Amino acid sequence: MTILVGYLPTPEGEAAVDAGLREGALRGERVIIVNSPRRGAPVDEHMIDDAAGAELLRRARAAGVDAELRQPLHDDDLPETFEALVKETGATLVVIGLRHRSLVGKFIMGSEAQRILMESTVPVLTVKAAQ
Amino acid sequence: MTILVGYLPTPEGEAAVDAGLREGALRGERVIIVNSPRRGAPVDEHMIDDAAGAELLRRARAAGVDAELRQPLHDDDLPETFEALVKETGATLVVIGLRHRSLVGKFIMGSEAQRILMESTVPVLTVKAAQ
Repeated sequence: MTILVGYLPTPEGEAAVDAGLREGALRGERVIIVNSPRRGAPVDEHMIDDAAGAELLRRARAAGVDAELRQPLHDDDLPETFEALVKETGATLVVIGLRHRSLVGKFIMGSEAQRILMESTVPVLTVKAAQ
Repeated sequence: MTILVGYLPTPEGEAAVDAGLREGALRGERVIIVNSPRRGAPVDEHMIDDAAGAELLRRARAAGVDAELRQPLHDDDLPETFEALVKETGATLVVIGLRHRSLVGKFIMGSEAQRILMESTVPVLTVKAAQ
């Protein structure tokens, strides 16, 4: 059994990794950290380098969780990229970070997050960054 | 520690209860099933009766989970009703059901579900009804 964690180097992404590793330890399942850069972007600040990837895997080991990192390119189809990984890996849970609602109350959920939530065929755990 | 489960007598509500009871058993936490009718509605098909409530608690006992049912009235503030219960009970997780995205792909997440996801201060697990 496998847990997929959506990761970007943002506070929400860190919260998702923390939560995914906790769930992996709790359920005795391995974790796949998915850091998916957009295809063809000349510079993608969301794509992590080898050192950052190695650090994520160190965090997983410290949490007693078997983990791997995947960096599939995506076009405008991040939800489909996730769903294909669910099917391929037999994942039973997806973990994603959500941004805090802004104080003015006007923040609307990002369309990619909403699509992952609506389209996922397995449960999705959403977490926010520590306030 | 406590898990809050949003319940309506719909396939999505049943899926949320199933998932909430699984999480309660896994984490060794009690579950509060929240069936919140709208205040002042003359007939609310979403409000369950005593027999249906007793059946939910039987399911919890069968799953080995300590559970209770709460039926707080709400106005247009279901997300605030949930958040107040999170604070009151020290809940560490909220579980809600989401409707499947329709085949034509036009289904948008309900605003109450979206607000619970955006406003919750604790992680939210979303599940769908079995297809």
